[in-house]
Amino acid sequence: MQPQVEFVFDVGSPYSYLAERALPGIVQAAGAQIVWRPVLLGAVIKTTGNHSPFEVPAKMRWVEQDIERCARALAVPFNRNPHFPVNTMVAMRIATGLLARRPDDFPAWVEAAFRAMWVEGRNLADPAELAAVIRNAGFDDRQLLALASEPAVKDLLRSATEEAIARGVFGAPTFFVGDQMFWGHDRLDQVARVLAPADSGRQS
Amino acid sequence: MQPQVEFVFDVGSPYSYLAERALPGIVQAAGAQIVWRPVLLGAVIKTTGNHSPFEVPAKMRWVEQDIERCARALAVPFNRNPHFPVNTMVAMRIATGLLARRPDDFPAWVEAAFRAMWVEGRNLADPAELAAVIRNAGFDDRQLLALASEPAVKDLLRSATEEAIARGVFGAPTFFVGDQMFWGHDRLDQVARVLAPADSGRQS
Repeated sequence: MQPQVEFVFDVGSPYSYLAERALPGIVQAAGAQIVWRPVLLGAVIKTTGNHSPFEVPAKMRWVEQDIERCARALAVPFNRNPHFPVNTMVAMRIATGLLARRPDDFPAWVEAAFRAMWVEGRNLADPAELAAVIRNAGFDDRQLLALASEPAVKDLLRSATEEAIARGVFGAPTFFVGDQMFWGHDRLDQVARVLAPADSGRQS
Repeated sequence: MQPQVEFVFDVGSPYSYLAERALPGIVQAAGAQIVWRPVLLGAVIKTTGNHSPFEVPAKMRWVEQDIERCARALAVPFNRNPHFPVNTMVAMRIATGLLARRPDDFPAWVEAAFRAMWVEGRNLADPAELAAVIRNAGFDDRQLLALASEPAVKDLLRSATEEAIARGVFGAPTFFVGDQMFWGHDRLDQVARVLAPADSGRQS
């Protein structure tokens, strides 16, 4: 069976963006597969009693430098988002709805939403900007906003977030390989190492 | 001039322990020098409004696994300390006093205190255990405890902690290379990269 990496993310999280850029290379090298797990990071942080870096001014000042350094090290384009922190609820409901109903369209939306947040500095909480980002990604904005407003889709994002918390998630990005959990894009080296044995096993 | 890495640490911090074990190899490879900056992490966290992982149960459960994985990756001996979090004030005052007055004795104490915390699972907040750890490290316990109780030494640790906070420190381990700050043992790759140019420059 092909090994899997579950990727718990929110497009409003800059380190999730770095992970989304770095992950394909890692799974390809290991012959593994990404299982996408969109969640609402704000709800995860609130429910677990965790704290976002922007609540701690000294930490936030460092995080801003750190993300730029990490993006440079990964050769990933990155620009600070002047609107951060951004409420990504509708964007994540769209991701959740597409993943459930139109999985072929999911990757294009996630990539567009991450790029809007962390390259273009857009405010996905602003309805007009969100609609523009949807259209620029090649989608019908009224269609995707209707999808996002469906009670079933809202429930799906809520239950996915609750399930992640129940499994131990307290932040994003988080990765699962089987029952092993890894938090932070800076633990992708460990994810790669855990995936490696399965790959070596297949070759032997 | 020999490049320097300032190492801001507290022996009560398990990631500081991992950094203390990994740092010598990095500075040797770069021809650099460690400048030790003992601080009281509890005061740093309180003053900056930061939060220790043990305040967030889900995060603490993951951190316990993560430290073991990181220690294994670095081939560093590690055992959970059942007394964590431990008040390391006296241990850090001893470190501060030795650094100021008997710098040749400083490394042996820091290594012994880190080992007591993160290999032997000792409670450095317990006077009898602390005295035993001091003696096992080859020091006179009454002498070092007298040093730790000197007002000048207490002031030195307090002012070093305040200075670190003023420079942007919010947690440990933290590294400075010039005015560039790095937080976390998992940023030592970036520290090594920043140190490298000076080394390459010398060779060209």
